[in-house]
Amino acid sequence: MFNLKLVSKKFKEKNIINLKNLKIGKDLIIIAGPCSVESEKQILQTALEVKKAGANILRGGAFKPRTSPYSFQGLGIKGLKLLKKAGKMFDMPIITELIDIRDINLIGEYSDIIQIGARNMQNFPLLKEVGKTNKPIMLKRGMNSTLEEFLCAAEYIMKEGNNKVFLCERGIRTFETYTRNTLDLSIIPSIKKESNLPIFVDPSHGTGLLSHIEPMSLAAIAAGADGLMIEVHINPEKALSDGFQAYPANEFKTLVDKIKRLYLTLNKK
Amino acid sequence: MFNLKLVSKKFKEKNIINLKNLKIGKDLIIIAGPCSVESEKQILQTALEVKKAGANILRGGAFKPRTSPYSFQGLGIKGLKLLKKAGKMFDMPIITELIDIRDINLIGEYSDIIQIGARNMQNFPLLKEVGKTNKPIMLKRGMNSTLEEFLCAAEYIMKEGNNKVFLCERGIRTFETYTRNTLDLSIIPSIKKESNLPIFVDPSHGTGLLSHIEPMSLAAIAAGADGLMIEVHINPEKALSDGFQAYPANEFKTLVDKIKRLYLTLNKK
Amino acid sequence: MFNLKLVSKKFKEKNIINLKNLKIGKDLIIIAGPCSVESEKQILQTALEVKKAGANILRGGAFKPRTSPYSFQGLGIKGLKLLKKAGKMFDMPIITELIDIRDINLIGEYSDIIQIGARNMQNFPLLKEVGKTNKPIMLKRGMNSTLEEFLCAAEYIMKEGNNKVFLCERGIRTFETYTRNTLDLSIIPSIKKESNLPIFVDPSHGTGLLSHIEPMSLAAIAAGADGLMIEVHINPEKALSDGFQAYPANEFKTLVDKIKRLYLTLNKK
Amino acid sequence: MFNLKLVSKKFKEKNIINLKNLKIGKDLIIIAGPCSVESEKQILQTALEVKKAGANILRGGAFKPRTSPYSFQGLGIKGLKLLKKAGKMFDMPIITELIDIRDINLIGEYSDIIQIGARNMQNFPLLKEVGKTNKPIMLKRGMNSTLEEFLCAAEYIMKEGNNKVFLCERGIRTFETYTRNTLDLSIIPSIKKESNLPIFVDPSHGTGLLSHIEPMSLAAIAAGADGLMIEVHINPEKALSDGFQAYPANEFKTLVDKIKRLYLTLNKK
Repeated sequence: MFNLKLVSKKFKEKNIINLKNLKIGKDLIIIAGPCSVESEKQILQTALEVKKAGANILRGGAFKPRTSPYSFQGLGIKGLKLLKKAGKMFDMPIITELIDIRDINLIGEYSDIIQIGARNMQNFPLLKEVGKTNKPIMLKRGMNSTLEEFLCAAEYIMKEGNNKVFLCERGIRTFETYTRNTLDLSIIPSIKKESNLPIFVDPSHGTGLLSHIEPMSLAAIAAGADGLMIEVHINPEKALSDGFQAYPANEFKTLVDKIKRLYLTLNKK
Repeated sequence: MFNLKLVSKKFKEKNIINLKNLKIGKDLIIIAGPCSVESEKQILQTALEVKKAGANILRGGAFKPRTSPYSFQGLGIKGLKLLKKAGKMFDMPIITELIDIRDINLIGEYSDIIQIGARNMQNFPLLKEVGKTNKPIMLKRGMNSTLEEFLCAAEYIMKEGNNKVFLCERGIRTFETYTRNTLDLSIIPSIKKESNLPIFVDPSHGTGLLSHIEPMSLAAIAAGADGLMIEVHINPEKALSDGFQAYPANEFKTLVDKIKRLYLTLNKK
Repeated sequence: MFNLKLVSKKFKEKNIINLKNLKIGKDLIIIAGPCSVESEKQILQTALEVKKAGANILRGGAFKPRTSPYSFQGLGIKGLKLLKKAGKMFDMPIITELIDIRDINLIGEYSDIIQIGARNMQNFPLLKEVGKTNKPIMLKRGMNSTLEEFLCAAEYIMKEGNNKVFLCERGIRTFETYTRNTLDLSIIPSIKKESNLPIFVDPSHGTGLLSHIEPMSLAAIAAGADGLMIEVHINPEKALSDGFQAYPANEFKTLVDKIKRLYLTLNKK
Repeated sequence: MFNLKLVSKKFKEKNIINLKNLKIGKDLIIIAGPCSVESEKQILQTALEVKKAGANILRGGAFKPRTSPYSFQGLGIKGLKLLKKAGKMFDMPIITELIDIRDINLIGEYSDIIQIGARNMQNFPLLKEVGKTNKPIMLKRGMNSTLEEFLCAAEYIMKEGNNKVFLCERGIRTFETYTRNTLDLSIIPSIKKESNLPIFVDPSHGTGLLSHIEPMSLAAIAAGADGLMIEVHINPEKALSDGFQAYPANEFKTLVDKIKRLYLTLNKK
């Protein structure tokens, strides 16, 4: 349909990404962790909880893209170090967002996966540069991006030689304000139809409502998502960013169990 | 949150609607049938197939709201009669859309459920008038309606004395054009949080893509939908309206079986 | 471009509508008055002020389409009578909205122009019915209507024999919430390109901000609008509906003078 | 209203930017030139025409942000050199877009004004970095950015010490597809109300239709815009990017004359 090459099924049926013992695009993957790394205690406790709950990859923001310059901007390198320590301690690959092209080596040194956030989905120099690494890249959909633009952004990365790309739907901007964004789950079958890329869903940013994480996680799996990215915090009320949508760490295992049960039911032969 | 009374949980925990042996809001309900009633053969064959497949209610348009005055506008009364005949023959309650307030008695005479379509969600005289009947009303969400407006529209009906109201998400209008509309499944948990009304999902209009009916039906169930409304046609390629999104009648049973299996898995204690 | 006949320039170059001494589509027309008729004093004083200011047509709602059933719904027939009285007293044609197809004769009896509101732009039975009258019809754009749907709605009216149709842009629904709606002035040249219909602009609903009425009125005229519809109230703070966006009656003449000066500058040969 | 400091009127009544003999924010400014610099002949001829027409600043893209990696990406440094040559030859300040933070010195060396494009409106490292220069910065509104986000992005720049910031509305993304974007002129009075920043309008990207450039340019001026940015090409049909919306160079003077006449009419005391 679109003018796409490497992200198309004609190039490869399914773009499976191997990362340690994980097969992204083949097995169900749960990415979990706090919006921002805030302290050693916070990230280690969160890592412990999400590991116990069955999550596969640890997330945590070190450099945060915030609407206002007066909001908390992340711990920076200190955050990266803490995230890496937590990942090592609990034997989990880590993912964090790259927002400044000049930090690419820094992020690459610490993180197993590089996240390109929604605001940078069409930051083409950044896309090209991560395309020159051999790191897995999680590309989030821009808030107002069409399917075609989303896939073209992935094509920018893969064109530079890095095929380890997977996508993440995180909600689009519509007139509806009850939810923070409108989670567009129909992009899951659209991506499966038009491309070979794995597609994840982030119900935390996608809805911005704690009450909606469970139903939308289950819905994403039922629609065929390859994985989920969920914000988890040991104390949501005290989070420095986006606490209102964070899943409480001590209840996270119950959620993951439900998600995995559903996945198994739907995928057993 | 909103200024709502009768559609709120404070009024009643869950608004269960009894229709013959069906309990809308309690049991999973599948509404199926063609976009438009086109001929006796078409509606009878479709009814036979959807009945066999396990659908509970038969749908079919007799008066069609079409963007262009030059498009097929439905068979009118003849369509109503054929729909009723089909419902009777296969012992299925029927649902059809009311678009003209002056037809309320006519529709009420033939149809077991009155559908208020997306374009009429804020046709307040129509809402008030169906609120004076004792028929179950399925209210579809307007293409650009917020949760609050959707619930207020239901309140208009219930304020007149008719509590038999259930809702249907059918996709909202966004910038994305790959799908016909953007199916907003997150409204399912929103409605469950803010109101007592059952919520159905119409993946046919919601996506406009045959390939998306199955994944989005499953996703809707996983998100907690009380039912689905799916367009089915014995010969989609020859349909007089919306054939491109109609599910082929002879494959419908396989879909319903998957939907029911998922529902049972998620709802077994 | 679209499948349109009567609203197209192929049918007629420009659809000029004669109403008393007014030529809608040829001369600049200002429609002004309160959102709702509230009392005799209110409508007579407002009519006096807008007449003095240079407005051509008096507006006033008698039957109000309100999101909540618990909001003020208008004075009904009493409102119609007061509006007619005011129009007669100050020798101004009047316009009011028809929301219930069963009121068509009633509205037709009192009002010189019938307004079809945004929520009813695709109320097809209503469109057909006003198409059978010989009244001028002002059709407002639906909040989520495309150009094609807008023109098709006008075609529904004209297909029934009534060519006295003019359009009104009143803002579309987007993600931006600072303004009540997003006033889409680019539809003015679009309509001029694709159709023969006069196009008005309602900056009151289109922006919902008093501060924006003047700049957006001037912008509409500069973009080629054939007229404006502006909400005016003698005491905006005490208005029963939409007072926050009403222009104060005693300042209205200054606004109209600016609008007319701009119109003359742009249209002098 | 928002948590803003430096872009607010409390900080400074109006943010006038002096650039050579131009006073951005005080006098009407016309920025014109091709979407992309394509060749020496093209940019010199265009510069000649827009200079003669009365434009004040010459635009031209050297590094182009394109949806597809397979589209023309601009001439790069060669484009910068040609643009500078044209600016010098016709004594016009030049503006070009910075898309890669690593090119900031390069762009700064060649260009008088740095443009931050819609896709980079929330590229926060880029905003901070241009905030450390002393170049005037034109910040374009993101396709899905709210007023608050737009002003916060400007605040990011000014917080670093660079007060020479002006804004540019270039259309937002809505459901309407007849125009390329929906030009939101109501943001002009919004910005004037909430901030001290000059606001320009780009009707070329904002509508994507040649037929709409004139009416929307005039409307922008009437709404209070401080300037316009218009794409002009000597041979639109052969343009390497966005030719469909480029204004033909040989007709540009007629347009500028109309714009200036309107501006004078509206602003004479």
